[in-house]
Amino acid sequence: MHYQSILDDIVESLRPQLGRHGEVADHIPALARVPAERLGIALRTCEGEEAAAGDAGEPFSIQSVSKLFSLTLAMQYLGDDLWDRIGREPSGDPFNSLVQLEFEQGIPRNPFINAGAIAVADRLTSRGDAAAEVLALLSSLCDEELQVDEEVATSEMDAGYRNLALASLMKDFGKIDNPIPQVLEAYFRQCSIRMDCRQLARAAGYLCRRGKHPYRPDEAVVTDRQARRLNALMLTCGTYDAAGEFAFRVGLPCKSGVGGGIVAVVPDRLSLCVWSPALDENGNSHLGMEALEMFVAKTRLSVF
Amino acid sequence: MHYQSILDDIVESLRPQLGRHGEVADHIPALARVPAERLGIALRTCEGEEAAAGDAGEPFSIQSVSKLFSLTLAMQYLGDDLWDRIGREPSGDPFNSLVQLEFEQGIPRNPFINAGAIAVADRLTSRGDAAAEVLALLSSLCDEELQVDEEVATSEMDAGYRNLALASLMKDFGKIDNPIPQVLEAYFRQCSIRMDCRQLARAAGYLCRRGKHPYRPDEAVVTDRQARRLNALMLTCGTYDAAGEFAFRVGLPCKSGVGGGIVAVVPDRLSLCVWSPALDENGNSHLGMEALEMFVAKTRLSVF
Amino acid sequence: MHYQSILDDIVESLRPQLGRHGEVADHIPALARVPAERLGIALRTCEGEEAAAGDAGEPFSIQSVSKLFSLTLAMQYLGDDLWDRIGREPSGDPFNSLVQLEFEQGIPRNPFINAGAIAVADRLTSRGDAAAEVLALLSSLCDEELQVDEEVATSEMDAGYRNLALASLMKDFGKIDNPIPQVLEAYFRQCSIRMDCRQLARAAGYLCRRGKHPYRPDEAVVTDRQARRLNALMLTCGTYDAAGEFAFRVGLPCKSGVGGGIVAVVPDRLSLCVWSPALDENGNSHLGMEALEMFVAKTRLSVF
Amino acid sequence: MHYQSILDDIVESLRPQLGRHGEVADHIPALARVPAERLGIALRTCEGEEAAAGDAGEPFSIQSVSKLFSLTLAMQYLGDDLWDRIGREPSGDPFNSLVQLEFEQGIPRNPFINAGAIAVADRLTSRGDAAAEVLALLSSLCDEELQVDEEVATSEMDAGYRNLALASLMKDFGKIDNPIPQVLEAYFRQCSIRMDCRQLARAAGYLCRRGKHPYRPDEAVVTDRQARRLNALMLTCGTYDAAGEFAFRVGLPCKSGVGGGIVAVVPDRLSLCVWSPALDENGNSHLGMEALEMFVAKTRLSVF
Repeated sequence: MHYQSILDDIVESLRPQLGRHGEVADHIPALARVPAERLGIALRTCEGEEAAAGDAGEPFSIQSVSKLFSLTLAMQYLGDDLWDRIGREPSGDPFNSLVQLEFEQGIPRNPFINAGAIAVADRLTSRGDAAAEVLALLSSLCDEELQVDEEVATSEMDAGYRNLALASLMKDFGKIDNPIPQVLEAYFRQCSIRMDCRQLARAAGYLCRRGKHPYRPDEAVVTDRQARRLNALMLTCGTYDAAGEFAFRVGLPCKSGVGGGIVAVVPDRLSLCVWSPALDENGNSHLGMEALEMFVAKTRLSVF
Repeated sequence: MHYQSILDDIVESLRPQLGRHGEVADHIPALARVPAERLGIALRTCEGEEAAAGDAGEPFSIQSVSKLFSLTLAMQYLGDDLWDRIGREPSGDPFNSLVQLEFEQGIPRNPFINAGAIAVADRLTSRGDAAAEVLALLSSLCDEELQVDEEVATSEMDAGYRNLALASLMKDFGKIDNPIPQVLEAYFRQCSIRMDCRQLARAAGYLCRRGKHPYRPDEAVVTDRQARRLNALMLTCGTYDAAGEFAFRVGLPCKSGVGGGIVAVVPDRLSLCVWSPALDENGNSHLGMEALEMFVAKTRLSVF
Repeated sequence: MHYQSILDDIVESLRPQLGRHGEVADHIPALARVPAERLGIALRTCEGEEAAAGDAGEPFSIQSVSKLFSLTLAMQYLGDDLWDRIGREPSGDPFNSLVQLEFEQGIPRNPFINAGAIAVADRLTSRGDAAAEVLALLSSLCDEELQVDEEVATSEMDAGYRNLALASLMKDFGKIDNPIPQVLEAYFRQCSIRMDCRQLARAAGYLCRRGKHPYRPDEAVVTDRQARRLNALMLTCGTYDAAGEFAFRVGLPCKSGVGGGIVAVVPDRLSLCVWSPALDENGNSHLGMEALEMFVAKTRLSVF
Repeated sequence: MHYQSILDDIVESLRPQLGRHGEVADHIPALARVPAERLGIALRTCEGEEAAAGDAGEPFSIQSVSKLFSLTLAMQYLGDDLWDRIGREPSGDPFNSLVQLEFEQGIPRNPFINAGAIAVADRLTSRGDAAAEVLALLSSLCDEELQVDEEVATSEMDAGYRNLALASLMKDFGKIDNPIPQVLEAYFRQCSIRMDCRQLARAAGYLCRRGKHPYRPDEAVVTDRQARRLNALMLTCGTYDAAGEFAFRVGLPCKSGVGGGIVAVVPDRLSLCVWSPALDENGNSHLGMEALEMFVAKTRLSVF
């Protein structure tokens, strides 16, 4: 397929809608001042072919997309022990709800809701500097040196009362091993990593390669089975309370973040990333989802 | 692949576990007396190749597997209008919970929880005899004359207080158009259709054929896009409160029923059906899920 | 005290507000056409002194006020066995919520929410014609022949899907012994009894007389202890989701209904009834509550 | 009445049950090592008569009984503005549940659940040293110098993750003005005040005196109306999730704490305090409730 022309077409046809739907995340100033009128898309195939269009080279805050990579690290380290403290089911509730966490006694429904990602950060913190490891993993995966946006990290920590509530509740249930401030710092720092679409499309490459490193085919980031499971979790839980809608309309494993980025995977074919900062009511990039739907319509690369 | 030997292997290796895990559904006598020690599996490829093993020829009550076919009919008739009254998100609650239905004002989370299937039955009832149409669709799809088990249908109606509560609550919210007894009769009758694994594997064939009829390739049961969407709904919502677990361990679109049947789809490849009546705590066939996991491990036919 | 002048004052000072706040119940036509501009108040002391003002002689539909009297009957018949199937705690949820009923497996929080009153009706139905007995009790208590409003009763039955849902859910949990239609008919008929303020003030007289009949002091309607317990239940649970607010502002045991009536008790002193059909957002009579607050401010007859 | 002999009788008849029901609070070591075999009771009438029996002179941790006095202070300072951030309804959920707090967007149901008392502590913190003021109020009310148990206060702060979760969630909703650590310290310190039954019975005296100070009849602690409202809140919300049961069985305004103390009020008559450290499943003193029920049975001093 001529991926480059497909991506160009998508950006071209969505350009008139730039800044007309949704709202940029505004819970911290550094995110609130990102201009809404941005759209980037990039992909990399299993053969190493690349294509990109629009603002694919403009860095943004990866936010919850980082949960995919911290989970990957936790799977490497802990294997199935990880699941003692985290479920694998869609939550059916908004991503930051405490209700389910209380009913289920401190066991988050899945690793992609905030509580689940905080639980993952706690497990990683028991082994070392969790945020630094996520940063190192991502730098390795996209073969570039990446940075945490310190302003974002600091603002997140100052404003993160909901996440503090989640962590405190899990700690009360005996499900967090490390001090809360340390765990939350790790979590907020991993969310504050800056990347662009190209880099994220590259970094997610192990997920379409049965777990193999995107640039070092002999090296397994995770096993084949783990890569499939990561894809399954992305599809059922990766886009907050809209996973069903994504599966229905897009049909690819996706992980989104409130920075406006969405990573998607076509197993055995390619990994891609779209970015547009204006969010729909579920916290997913409005145009990002449109772009993915167009991509699947044009390529028929849905898993279904 | 040598599907026949794969299916034989699966049945052979699971045979020692027959009757050792889970419980047969016992909410009505006709289901409670089904022997637990049964396991059948059958598939049919897009090329028409068939394979079957174990008790694949023994008819059982399809129960909630019927929701897949009533939804198919509703999509044919109503297109996207169907979604005015039914959501497309995993529920995160047990399949028969009223909590979510009350909070969301009579709009069921998805068409595969009981409330959603009752809402579908109501929409079909507005057009005619819903249960008869589901029966006719299934008979056409598997190319055989099927029957409703009248004893099961009668027992379900006598014992169906939870479903009566769901229907009444939706009616109270103005979301059910037809008289409750008529809607519930349609629902219970479609659940009481008897089929065996072979028949169900055949009937689901349009889902791996981009919507085309399993025996009449020129005839579209649904559109390509609708077929993909049905698969997406199966994967995210088709197995009660264990959809995440199914995606994680099996990785195929599945629809299960408390009769112990599970239909699964490998898009563009094949449709299959397993049956074993003993259920796990989520209401899914315990050995059925094991069999599917083995099938995917042996064939690597997961969508992920 | 000069009760008559106090009641006159209350009606006089509230008259300018008639019809300016709240909405008349409109779930059935017969209630919707009651004029909003009505206010009546009546009391009867333990010594038999009576006072009344405004529309105290105009009959209205007692609706949920009837729950007080059906509970009285159930206490007579069943004693403490009654509490096997009904709790005694405030619900913290709207009066017709299914959520709590589902979590607590068919045991209603208290006998004054709809589910609880339906459970009471079921227990009474096991002994005979429940609605007829409530009617007979009320006729005896106020020493006049009362009637069920048949139009209201029929309309309630036709529109009562929420109550059908509650009854079905309890039946599903095995907590309803009799056929649902019979139980709901009893419940809807008792709600459809017509009385005026004078009659209800008289009828509630046993609650300020330590259980003794208002007109036959030698006859115990309930024991002293049961009378106190009825008052306690009224105070903590008698006014839907506003029991705390009533205790805070009025400070008397009260039972309200969506017909706009509220019965209140001053233990060892008097029983009273106010009626004004326009309801606040909790389903309690807006001016009725105002009138009770004024009554307590003028007489200092709060229990606190 | 001969209160002294009544209290002696109560202690005598309950003595055989000492240590046989319930469990001492064990969430912090200093509470866990309190012996279960203790029972004290004391009262003081509006005329200044006192009576006491059992372990009435042994100090204990007042815990949530302090919420009554911090609320009193907040009513003094803020009047009805207090209710902008706190409701007045029973919660229908365990005292430390986050569910309701999330649904109701950071507004606690009432000032006696933990979230409500933390919200009160926040309002008091805006005016000064909240815990010091509660301590000063209590010292004035019982006319003795009281102390905070520093070991208990420190332990509470170290273990209080559930309360940290509640405070964080309210802060996230913009309902807490002061820094969380400062608010929680105030809250935990007020809970750690040590008093005995005699002192608490004296201190609660303004609640049976229409707001007047127990020892200085010319001085109003709160207004008559506020005193009645405090009693109303105690009756509907003062004993965690068992307020209905207390009203039903005891029929007096009560406020309990997990230290095993319960303060009760008979308006216009007397204030009393019972203490026994073993708690029932609701977190109320098991024998304390029994003692109150006996007291009311013997004196017929229920408000109902």
